[in-house]
Amino acid sequence: MNNQDLERLKSVIRDVPDFPTKGVLFRDLTTLFKDGEALHIVSDELKSLYTGLGVTKVVGIESRGFIGGSILAYELNAGFVPLRKPGKLPAETIKKTYNKEYGTDTIEIHTDAIDENDIVIIHDDVLATGGTMEAAYELVKSRNPKKIYINFIIELSFLEGRKLFNDDVDIKSLIIY
Amino acid sequence: MNNQDLERLKSVIRDVPDFPTKGVLFRDLTTLFKDGEALHIVSDELKSLYTGLGVTKVVGIESRGFIGGSILAYELNAGFVPLRKPGKLPAETIKKTYNKEYGTDTIEIHTDAIDENDIVIIHDDVLATGGTMEAAYELVKSRNPKKIYINFIIELSFLEGRKLFNDDVDIKSLIIY
Repeated sequence: MNNQDLERLKSVIRDVPDFPTKGVLFRDLTTLFKDGEALHIVSDELKSLYTGLGVTKVVGIESRGFIGGSILAYELNAGFVPLRKPGKLPAETIKKTYNKEYGTDTIEIHTDAIDENDIVIIHDDVLATGGTMEAAYELVKSRNPKKIYINFIIELSFLEGRKLFNDDVDIKSLIIY
Repeated sequence: MNNQDLERLKSVIRDVPDFPTKGVLFRDLTTLFKDGEALHIVSDELKSLYTGLGVTKVVGIESRGFIGGSILAYELNAGFVPLRKPGKLPAETIKKTYNKEYGTDTIEIHTDAIDENDIVIIHDDVLATGGTMEAAYELVKSRNPKKIYINFIIELSFLEGRKLFNDDVDIKSLIIY
């Protein structure tokens, strides 16, 4: 991404102190998404990262990952697959429980959402500590797709979420703090 | 929409009996969204309904409404605004509590998400009894935009959700059961 676009995007991300808990500086993308021009810049930058790779499915993590993920699927002529909280998907699922700072969380995917012919991007809005994406990656990997790419709009590099993944996992972020 | 496209879309919607509760036939759009060609047909049909109307914001209702809503925003060069469950939006919000079959539910929108210069589409995946969309409509209307359109992919017409709205409210659905 060129510097002008990067600065344009950063200028519409809202910093919210102490959300969701005290001491956390939350990078709020709603002020970017509501700006039609900024939404287009993000969408076209995402597309440019993955054009020509034969991507067949984009998996979005509930619920903020549905926004960029579904636009990216549309742009790449791929299908969109929601990865959801427990009990929300109506057909047969596989699930994964993972540790969070306090307690655990669980995510689910339909068993028929991904198969071994797929080339998949898993998308979420922000990479923080990485626990949710690690669980998502393991769920998708269990369906044996040909290839998995991981994508974020924002990466909070000081939280070192990348360290949860092997070096050969392809992880790309548009904006790094 | 031409009949061929309509039949193509209907053929990839999965009917799930007794979800989320016994006696309900759930129209599952995940099997449509994961089909890149079907996702494109839906997206382009949505776009064709609202092209040339000067739409500036598309509001998607958490979380399934984020999928079609964000693609539609992208296609119309509009911004995307998430309408979320309580406690998820980090800045100042207004909220609305509404009745459901059992108990109540609440949705929120950022106070700065919509203003009086906006022309807005509120999008959700399915119109059932209409309670959620009615609350969403009142929330958006309280921000005094120039115009509000309401859109669904699927309308379950036998549940008569349209009756909650005045006749002058513009409600469009792609697929009616």
